[in-house]
Amino acid sequence: MRVWIISIGNELLIGKVVNTNASWLAKKLTVMGFRVERIVSIPDDEEVIIGVFREAIDNADIVISTGGLGPTFDDKTSEALAKALNRRWVLNEDAYKEVKEKFVSVGMELTEERLKMAKMPEGAVSLRNSAGVAPGILVRYDNKLVVALPGVPREMMAIFEDELEGILREIAPHKYYVEETVKIMGVPESTLAPYIDKLVKKYPTMYFKSHPKGRETGLSIIELHISTYTQDREKTMRETRRILDELRDIVARNRGKIVEK
Amino acid sequence: MRVWIISIGNELLIGKVVNTNASWLAKKLTVMGFRVERIVSIPDDEEVIIGVFREAIDNADIVISTGGLGPTFDDKTSEALAKALNRRWVLNEDAYKEVKEKFVSVGMELTEERLKMAKMPEGAVSLRNSAGVAPGILVRYDNKLVVALPGVPREMMAIFEDELEGILREIAPHKYYVEETVKIMGVPESTLAPYIDKLVKKYPTMYFKSHPKGRETGLSIIELHISTYTQDREKTMRETRRILDELRDIVARNRGKIVEK
Repeated sequence: MRVWIISIGNELLIGKVVNTNASWLAKKLTVMGFRVERIVSIPDDEEVIIGVFREAIDNADIVISTGGLGPTFDDKTSEALAKALNRRWVLNEDAYKEVKEKFVSVGMELTEERLKMAKMPEGAVSLRNSAGVAPGILVRYDNKLVVALPGVPREMMAIFEDELEGILREIAPHKYYVEETVKIMGVPESTLAPYIDKLVKKYPTMYFKSHPKGRETGLSIIELHISTYTQDREKTMRETRRILDELRDIVARNRGKIVEK
Repeated sequence: MRVWIISIGNELLIGKVVNTNASWLAKKLTVMGFRVERIVSIPDDEEVIIGVFREAIDNADIVISTGGLGPTFDDKTSEALAKALNRRWVLNEDAYKEVKEKFVSVGMELTEERLKMAKMPEGAVSLRNSAGVAPGILVRYDNKLVVALPGVPREMMAIFEDELEGILREIAPHKYYVEETVKIMGVPESTLAPYIDKLVKKYPTMYFKSHPKGRETGLSIIELHISTYTQDREKTMRETRRILDELRDIVARNRGKIVEK
């Protein structure tokens, strides 16, 4: 189950905002057994948004965007998504009720800008926003799931957890994600590399990734991350422990030490 | 001058690491007058890296990648870049000297894995890494600049500032980037929207973006970001001050207040 995440907003491309939304979503999805294959940050430009939505739908089973669902002129995601899907952009009844109720309950008028937050691609499901106004958008298209969430982290997380997570659980690959991270002190990454190569070949279903945290030619600290998806969590955890035993031997032979985190 | 940033590394796609490299680079480049049009995060997969490098070269004048330059099997950027450019992947003389010196000076042997860090696409310029071992890679291709930097933030920043920034300054559009951010309290974003629309039309060279920080139907706090590129910094700053005066009027009429940051 391949996922693309689309992060929409000029603030990401001028370096004003660090894309924590994408990493939060990526972690959530990974743990559920989905495979995030791409994260794309793009500006608030309708043509670009349409193009990237289409590319994502062509290449992934699930597409999740963040940003661009608010009331202002630079919030273009909903209409662009309708165009990408060749659907009309219409008032969604559930979204309309939700948005109207939120404004009316505090004595605010339902202006055109506010109504915009209730417009969605035809046939979309509105995802309730318990932390703000603009509802999320879910569209089933061609056996795929296309979801648009707001860019405000608090609202994005609330809609994901309240509304989306349950829907995703139903289609999740029912696989577990198992990971283990160890810190290796005193063995340069380049010394470790050929040993890791051998482990990669010996355990082909495991993914190994080393992150240098110290200095290659000074005090070397390497964070080694071992991870995999599995149907059988117990068996995989035993395998992971065997790998860690082998690693301990390798590191000891190279006069380093291993610290489990 | 359009820029694409390519962030390479599975750790980004499983949500283990937040992509601060991309936002750091985006800010640096924006301030120099470049326009970052896309940030793409992809896994350590050679075919994917080749494909995205080619797409980036087709769509941008400057392509900068981070990650995948180390000594291990999962460091695939350099060889993938050579393939993307249809160039041979060869030992770079300057890189070889730098890498060799770094290992030899601490009494370490130059193994195959270590030598890998000195291999680059044919014709590349090696960018010295003062904070680690793996040099950066710069390739001039088809009037475009393709640069690969390490993923370790300290090393990425060191190479950018020591080696790359000077080269980029020479081709920078000599435009200034002017920005102003104000905080607007007590006016909902949806109330402000039609006024902002008018300002957008009145000042077409200015980019307006509002970031809701409070609650639309509760205490509303909006950060309004006004920015533009210009050749004439003084004139643009005067214009920005005029816009702020108009904004102050609008906000006051809607019983809110404005706080300059």
